Amino acid sequence: MTRPVRSPLIPIRPELTPELLAWAQRAESVLDRELPPANQMPERLHQAMRYSVLGGGKRLRALLAYAAGRCFAAPPECADASAAALEIIHAYSLIHDDLPAMDNDDLRRGKPTCHIAFGEAMAILAGDALQALAFEVLTSDTQSRADAGTRIKMLRTLAQACGAHGMAGGQAFDLDAVGQRLSHSELERMHAYKTGALIRAAVLLGTLGAGRVDATELDRMGAVGARIGLAFQIRDDILDIEGDTEVIGKRQGADIARDKPTYPSIIGMEASRALAQSLRDETISLLAGHGTAAESLRDLAHYAVDRRS
Amino acid sequence: MTRPVRSPLIPIRPELTPELLAWAQRAESVLDRELPPANQMPERLHQAMRYSVLGGGKRLRALLAYAAGRCFAAPPECADASAAALEIIHAYSLIHDDLPAMDNDDLRRGKPTCHIAFGEAMAILAGDALQALAFEVLTSDTQSRADAGTRIKMLRTLAQACGAHGMAGGQAFDLDAVGQRLSHSELERMHAYKTGALIRAAVLLGTLGAGRVDATELDRMGAVGARIGLAFQIRDDILDIEGDTEVIGKRQGADIARDKPTYPSIIGMEASRALAQSLRDETISLLAGHGTAAESLRDLAHYAVDRRS
Repeated sequence: MTRPVRSPLIPIRPELTPELLAWAQRAESVLDRELPPANQMPERLHQAMRYSVLGGGKRLRALLAYAAGRCFAAPPECADASAAALEIIHAYSLIHDDLPAMDNDDLRRGKPTCHIAFGEAMAILAGDALQALAFEVLTSDTQSRADAGTRIKMLRTLAQACGAHGMAGGQAFDLDAVGQRLSHSELERMHAYKTGALIRAAVLLGTLGAGRVDATELDRMGAVGARIGLAFQIRDDILDIEGDTEVIGKRQGADIARDKPTYPSIIGMEASRALAQSLRDETISLLAGHGTAAESLRDLAHYAVDRRS
Repeated sequence: MTRPVRSPLIPIRPELTPELLAWAQRAESVLDRELPPANQMPERLHQAMRYSVLGGGKRLRALLAYAAGRCFAAPPECADASAAALEIIHAYSLIHDDLPAMDNDDLRRGKPTCHIAFGEAMAILAGDALQALAFEVLTSDTQSRADAGTRIKMLRTLAQACGAHGMAGGQAFDLDAVGQRLSHSELERMHAYKTGALIRAAVLLGTLGAGRVDATELDRMGAVGARIGLAFQIRDDILDIEGDTEVIGKRQGADIARDKPTYPSIIGMEASRALAQSLRDETISLLAGHGTAAESLRDLAHYAVDRRS
């Protein structure tokens, strides 16, 4: 496994390490297999689901699951179902976030959003069906090293990360926050729910799928996931200001245009950068005990902070 | 347990047997406990979730789970988590079905629909959070007699009933069917997905939660659930024509107004009634081996066909 030369700000794909690239390709093929065929009834629904999940996206959540499993010497197949479930949940959340009643976005991953391509009703249903599919995929996992009790824990971890005290709750905070001046701790909670919960779940699912991991180690990996998640979201806020629409694949300035509170607007740009970097450094410290097995997870922590899209 | 005098067409609540009434009240209190508190952040989301789940609804899916468990001598606590999960899923599906982009309904269970009361964005999120909560509740079940492997099967059964080959798929069929002339078998498939899958899942979850049930018995209970589900939907189609808005709690004639294919429009009113009755009779035959333990499940099969709302 060669470590690539990394500039401070890099788009992920060209500089993906061979290990990360192999996992991203692996996730794509697992997703292709798990999604219902486009030529099978109800066809338009299946097409909308495939359109939104396949052929785009950073696959960060899948990569985190594979990378977390790797810390505990698990082969990638142990995280296949988790990786697919996480990316399916993420895709569903983007479909619903983009809806006219929500963020009303017409561009996502550089192509028309699901409701532009398939209509609003079908987009709502595609999101709903994808959420169910994520749980179905995880219940059908036969390759992880987790015993049945641990698999139920994985399902609970995913469900909690999606619900009112996770992603959906974060979106509700976000709705209510438009035009508000949040405190730093309120903003942190909003981001922990909105983006952090699923990224933390990705690290936990990868860890749990690796087999017997003690409670201390699991807590530590939860802390790693929470830090990567927050760093990722701070970077998102920064890119909303500094990014280029063509590179980030969605409208630059969208958060500012909607008067949404962001890290740069609340603590300032330089403090935002410094915070993201310190979260990355804490992550790397937390992973110190894993040596080279944690190399890809460290790479992803760097990526969360340095990414350009 | 006294069996009530039953007229051919009855509203359920006044004539609920003591056993069914006790289960309906039990489901209500489990739901109240499982839903997040209205005064806890994010408050509006929690309020929208509670508004849509509590204080209304027939609780048919919960009752089916309890009644199925009763066939195998399971005490009601074995089906508490399943009952709550099923009703939460059902409530989420109603919120999304009622959205402006979908059926655009303003009245549900005799009160304003969720998006009228809380706004469209919050209604989308409440539905999303409820779907996640249903799975979370089922992963947190500690009272059923199911072992961990069976609990995963219960989660898979629920996920499949919600997804592209279940409820969400049925809604997609429904969208694409507006203004179409479906064949009887196409209509049956649409209804099997849209309503039948979750009702069948209710019977299966109640059965699986009762502990060790052999595959033949499980298949039989699946057949019971499928028949009750289809009979229930045929009755729904009939009530859309014959029902009274005040009694059914939603707009009478809504399907006709939208030019949706229904059983009466495809096979005629009398054939629809006869089909529902024959599905009920088949259900009762399938349950013959359970004697008095199946009394409530038989009552529910009658209810599916005779209900007035």
